[in-house]
Amino acid sequence: MQKSWEQRFADRAGLIDSSAIREILKYSSAPGVISFAGGLPSPDVFPVAEFKRACEVVLDEAGPASLQYSPTEGFVPLREVIAEHSASYGIRVPIENIQLTSGSQQALDLLGMLFIDPGDYVVVENPTYLGALQAWNAYGARYLTVPSDEQGMRTDLLEDVLRKEPRFIYVLPNFQNPSGVTLPLERRQELVEMADKYGIPIIEDDPYGKLRYFGENIAPVFVLDQEYRGGNGDEVEGNVIYMSTFSKLLAPGIRMAWVIAELEVIRKLVFAKQGADLHSPTFNQMIAYEVARDGFLHEYSKTIRATYKERLLLMLEAMEEHFPEGVEWTKPEGGMFLWVTLPEGLDAQELLPKAVERKVAYVPGQPFHPDGSGKNTMRVNFSNASPQMIREGIARLGALFREELERLVTAPKS
Amino acid sequence: MQKSWEQRFADRAGLIDSSAIREILKYSSAPGVISFAGGLPSPDVFPVAEFKRACEVVLDEAGPASLQYSPTEGFVPLREVIAEHSASYGIRVPIENIQLTSGSQQALDLLGMLFIDPGDYVVVENPTYLGALQAWNAYGARYLTVPSDEQGMRTDLLEDVLRKEPRFIYVLPNFQNPSGVTLPLERRQELVEMADKYGIPIIEDDPYGKLRYFGENIAPVFVLDQEYRGGNGDEVEGNVIYMSTFSKLLAPGIRMAWVIAELEVIRKLVFAKQGADLHSPTFNQMIAYEVARDGFLHEYSKTIRATYKERLLLMLEAMEEHFPEGVEWTKPEGGMFLWVTLPEGLDAQELLPKAVERKVAYVPGQPFHPDGSGKNTMRVNFSNASPQMIREGIARLGALFREELERLVTAPKS
Repeated sequence: MQKSWEQRFADRAGLIDSSAIREILKYSSAPGVISFAGGLPSPDVFPVAEFKRACEVVLDEAGPASLQYSPTEGFVPLREVIAEHSASYGIRVPIENIQLTSGSQQALDLLGMLFIDPGDYVVVENPTYLGALQAWNAYGARYLTVPSDEQGMRTDLLEDVLRKEPRFIYVLPNFQNPSGVTLPLERRQELVEMADKYGIPIIEDDPYGKLRYFGENIAPVFVLDQEYRGGNGDEVEGNVIYMSTFSKLLAPGIRMAWVIAELEVIRKLVFAKQGADLHSPTFNQMIAYEVARDGFLHEYSKTIRATYKERLLLMLEAMEEHFPEGVEWTKPEGGMFLWVTLPEGLDAQELLPKAVERKVAYVPGQPFHPDGSGKNTMRVNFSNASPQMIREGIARLGALFREELERLVTAPKS
Repeated sequence: MQKSWEQRFADRAGLIDSSAIREILKYSSAPGVISFAGGLPSPDVFPVAEFKRACEVVLDEAGPASLQYSPTEGFVPLREVIAEHSASYGIRVPIENIQLTSGSQQALDLLGMLFIDPGDYVVVENPTYLGALQAWNAYGARYLTVPSDEQGMRTDLLEDVLRKEPRFIYVLPNFQNPSGVTLPLERRQELVEMADKYGIPIIEDDPYGKLRYFGENIAPVFVLDQEYRGGNGDEVEGNVIYMSTFSKLLAPGIRMAWVIAELEVIRKLVFAKQGADLHSPTFNQMIAYEVARDGFLHEYSKTIRATYKERLLLMLEAMEEHFPEGVEWTKPEGGMFLWVTLPEGLDAQELLPKAVERKVAYVPGQPFHPDGSGKNTMRVNFSNASPQMIREGIARLGALFREELERLVTAPKS
C-alpha cells in the first residue's frame, strides 16, 4: 500500500514552499541575461589568493583537527576575530555571547525555531527580507507589517502592532534588503524604547554594516539598546539579538555567520543548532579565521566598498539617464540593492518576462511584502554586474519602462 | 520592561535541549582521559594531503565560483560521484534523486521538519541514534520503540507499532549506532513488507555502509524495497528514504552528507533546506568532489577498514581478557561502536564518574533508549583511540567493573 507522499508529510510541510524568487533567479541566470536579480556579491572581489593561503596554513598546522568534528559553539579564535570586528561597530561582547551559524539563513531558521509557535505574530518591515519569511513560514508565523519609507521602518507606527504581543521585531537597519534604505538614529532609538516598553525582543539583521559608501555610520540597535538600559557591565544584557555574516565581507560560499545575544539566548541557540547540523564545518571556521585575522576584514572591506560604490554611482547615473519620468528609486548609502517604484498600473511581475526577453532581469517587489502590496516595485542589485553590464542593463530596462508606460497611456481599458 | 527569555521563547523551545551525551563528551575529553565516548572517526586516517591538493585545484580552477552562493540541490559533479558510489551498494538513481545536506544531522532535522507534527509517532529501534531523537524532539515527536537483539530490530514485533499510524520507521541497518549490530537480510525483507503493508515510509540511515570488516555486504533496505515493488525502471519509486554521509568516508569536519529518495520527497527537502541554510558550502562541495572523484572513496575505504578492523579486534581481545564474567558485549561486523551490557544492578551512568577518575570514558546507554531502559548498558567507540590506548583503556574499565561487581555482591542492601 503506497500512499502519496503528500498524504505522508506533516501538516507543517504545507507551510514549506519554494522562495518566490527562486524560480526567477533560475531563469534570470540564463546565458546572456544581465541579471540584477540575485543578491550576489561580486566574485571580482573575492579574496581567492588569501583563501588559498589559508587552506594551506590550516591543513599544514591544524591538519586532521581541521577535518574532525568540533563543538557546536564554534572555533574560539574565529569568535575572537568576530568579537574584535564587532567592537568596530561598538558592540563589545565576550566570545561566550557569540554563536557561529551556517550562514545568516541558519540564524533566521534557528531563531524561528526558538521563538515562533504556529500562529504567532512577528513584526517585520514592509517590504522585508524574503529569506526570513521563508524560514519563519515553516514555523507557522503570521506577520504584522510596519510601513517603510526612504528612512526605513516607520517607528511612529510601531506601537499599534506591538500591542498584539508579537514574538519579536525583525529589522535590517543598514541598507535594507530589499529596499536599500537606512534607519536613522532617532528611529533606532524609538525602536529600542518601544520594544522595551512592550518587552518585545528585536532581531537586528546586519549583513551589510561595513558596506557604507556615503555618510556616517550609525550605531547598531544592539548598542543603542545597551546604552538605553545602562547595565552594570558585568554581563551582556539586552533586548536585541544581533546577527551578521561573512557572506558579504569575505565570501558566501563558505556559509559562515554569527549571532550575538544574551547568554540565555545563546545557550538555547546552541542546543537548537546541535539538533539542526551539529556544528558548522570545522574546516570553514578555521579557514575563515585564517583569512579574517590580523585586521584583514578591515582592510579588505575598503576594496569591496570602492568597487561597490563605483557600481552604485554608475547605476544611479544610468537610471537618471534612462528611466522615464514617473519611475522612482532609492539612493542607498551602502549595501547591494536599490529599490525601484514604477508608476501605478505597471506590474513588475508581469513585466519580468519581457525584461528577460530583452536579456535583463530584476526581482519583482511584491514577494517581499507580507501584506501582498508592492506590485509596482522591484529590487535591483548593483554589486554583482560589471560596470559595462550595469550601463547596458539599465538602458534596456529604461527602454522597456518607456514602452510600457506608453502602452499604459494609449491602451483602451480592458 | 524586560521579560525573562524563558517567557519569550516559543513553547517549542521547551522541547529543545542539550543532547544527553554532550556534557559527557565535554568532560570525557579532559587531558589524559582515554575516551571511548565520542563517535569520532580516527584522525590518523584523514586524507589531509588529498584535501590540500583539492583546495589548490578548486581555488585555481573554479576560483571565485567556489566562494559564491550556489543552488540548494548541490554541486552536480559531486552528486554524480555520490550516484556512482551508491551504485556500489546497488542503489541506482539519477542525480535528481540525490539531495546534499550539511551532515546527516541536517538530513535528520529536515526530514523531521517535513514529516513530524507535534505529538506524531515515529518508530525507532531501542536503542537508537541519539542525534535523531534530539532533532525530532524539537518537532514534538513521540517514539514507539521496537526491541533489538544481536540482529538488530525485532521485525517480528513491528506490526503492533505500525498499527498506531507512525509517520515513519527509522532504522540503521548496518553496524548500528549505538549497538553495533547489523540487520540480516530476512529482517530487512520483513521490514520492507510490513512498511509497505501499512504504507509507512522507512528512513534508512547508513553512515557506516563501507565500514564492513567481516562477512558479506547485505543489500540496503532501499534496494530491497525497490525489488519488492518491481517498478517500471523509468522513475525512482519507493517507500525508503536513504541517507549517508562523507563523515566516516572522508572527514566529518566538512559536514557533507546526502539523502536519496523519490522526487516528491527531494523537492520538498530542497525547499526545507533553502529555508534552513540556503545551501551547503559551495567550497566544501567542490572540495569533496575533488577528493572523492576517480574512485578515491573505494580505494580509501580500504585504508579505513584496515585501521578500524585492527582496533576492533584489539578491543574484543582486550575485553575478553579484562572484563569479568557477567559483562557482555556485541561483536560488530563493522562500523565504529560496540555495545556493552553490565550485569543487572550496575548502572553505567553512576559508574561513569568513577571511570573518568581512572582516566577512561564511555557513553552510558540509557539516553539511547526512548523508553528509558538500558541503565546497565554503554556504548564503546573503537575507531578513535590508538591501539595502545585501547588496551590500556579496556584494562582500566575491566578493573572498575570487577571492583563494582564485588561491591555489589558484598554490599548490604541499603
